[in-house]
Amino acid sequence: MEQHHGDGPRSPVKEKPVMSNIGKSTNILWHNCPIGQSDRQKLLGQKGCVVWITGLSGSGKSTLACALNRELHYRGHLTYVLDGDNLRHGLNRDLSFKAEDRAENIRRVGEVAKLFADAGIICIASLISPYRRDRDACRALLPDSKFIEVFMDLPLKICEARDPKGLYKLARTGKIKGFTGIDDPYEPPVNGEIVIQMKDGECPSPKEMARQVLCYLEENGYLQA
Amino acid sequence: MEQHHGDGPRSPVKEKPVMSNIGKSTNILWHNCPIGQSDRQKLLGQKGCVVWITGLSGSGKSTLACALNRELHYRGHLTYVLDGDNLRHGLNRDLSFKAEDRAENIRRVGEVAKLFADAGIICIASLISPYRRDRDACRALLPDSKFIEVFMDLPLKICEARDPKGLYKLARTGKIKGFTGIDDPYEPPVNGEIVIQMKDGECPSPKEMARQVLCYLEENGYLQA
Repeated sequence: MEQHHGDGPRSPVKEKPVMSNIGKSTNILWHNCPIGQSDRQKLLGQKGCVVWITGLSGSGKSTLACALNRELHYRGHLTYVLDGDNLRHGLNRDLSFKAEDRAENIRRVGEVAKLFADAGIICIASLISPYRRDRDACRALLPDSKFIEVFMDLPLKICEARDPKGLYKLARTGKIKGFTGIDDPYEPPVNGEIVIQMKDGECPSPKEMARQVLCYLEENGYLQA
Repeated sequence: MEQHHGDGPRSPVKEKPVMSNIGKSTNILWHNCPIGQSDRQKLLGQKGCVVWITGLSGSGKSTLACALNRELHYRGHLTYVLDGDNLRHGLNRDLSFKAEDRAENIRRVGEVAKLFADAGIICIASLISPYRRDRDACRALLPDSKFIEVFMDLPLKICEARDPKGLYKLARTGKIKGFTGIDDPYEPPVNGEIVIQMKDGECPSPKEMARQVLCYLEENGYLQA
C-alpha cells in the first residue's frame, strides 16, 4: 500500500476538508487560507498574472523582461522576473537539457509562476519554451486570462547575428546538438496575446517592447485591482 | 559532450555576463535586472523573508500559517503561504513520500520560498520537514537572517490526540509506514528563532501563536523596508 503522510494539520476553514490523491501523493489535504488572491490584489492595486515571454535564443526575451519589470516598478507595481537561466541555478539545478528535463523545467517554471500570480504579483517568465504543448500546459494552469503569451517573433538570422552567448556558433559547428532554431524546432504560438516584431526593418527598442506589453496590461485591466 | 543551451539573451546589465556550470546545466548566463530586492522592499514597506514553520503532523503549522498570514495582511503586509500539502497538488505532484522525494520536496519549497523572499514578500512555509539537514539546507539558501525557523514544540500525545487527518491512527495500526513521530524521527531545531510551546498546560491559540511570530518580525525590523 502506498504511504499516506500529511504535511499540515487542520486549517481554520469553514468548508469540510477535502482529501485527495494527487500524482504520487495520497491523502493530501487542501488548506484554504482566509486571505486570498483578491485580498492581495486589493493591497497591491493590480491583478496577479503571468507574462510568458517565449522565443529563440537571442530574440530579446530577457531584455524585454528587464525593461518591462523596470517600467512596471516605476509605476508602483510589484513584479517578479522568473528567468529560465537563473532558475537553473536554484530550483531547477537538478535538470539537464535533455528533452524530458526541458519539459520538466518549463512545468516547474509554470507552477512557480502560478504561485506568484496567486500572490497578486505580475510575474514575468522568460524562457525559450520552444514547444507549444509545454507552453499550453502552463496556460492551462492559469485560467481566467491570467496567462499572457508574448512571442518574440524575430527572424532567426537576427538572433543568430546577435548570438550573445556564442551558442549559435557552437550549434552550427555541431559542437552542441538539439539547439532551438538550428537542429531543434521552435513552434510559434498560434493564438498568443502579444507578438513582438520588427517594424520597417528595425528591431524594436527595449522600451518600445515594454510599452507594447504595458499597453496590453493596462487595456485589459491588470494594472488595477 | 554535454549540451549547451541558453534560455535568454543578453541582459541590459552593466557588469560582464558570467557563464557558469550549475548542476547538470552548462553555459548558464546569470541575468541581473536593474530592479532588485531592495527596490521591491521599499515598494512594499517590509523586508522579504521566509518564516519556516516545522513540527509534527497535528502540531498546528497550517493553523499558525493562516493566522499569521491574516494578521500581517490586516497590517498591510504582503505575505504568501507555501503549504507542503498544497504544493503537492502542483509543483511537487511528481514526488512521492519516499525518503529522497521528501528531501526533494523540501528543497523545492526552500528554493521557491527564496524566490518569494527575493520578491520582497514575507513567505510563510509550513511543512513537517522532520530532518535538520533538509531545513539547514533551506536556511543556507537564505543568508542575512532571512530564514526564520519556527518550531511547533507540542507533545506528540497532543498532536496524536488531534489527529486531524486520521493519519496517526493509520500509522499506529501499521497501515502507513515511516510516519514522522511514530516510526520515523522528528529532529527538533537546535538554534531556531522561535519556539511555540504550551503554557500552563494549555496550547496557545492561533492568535497567540501569530502574535509571537509577529513580535519577532517587528522587533527584528522585517515590517519596514
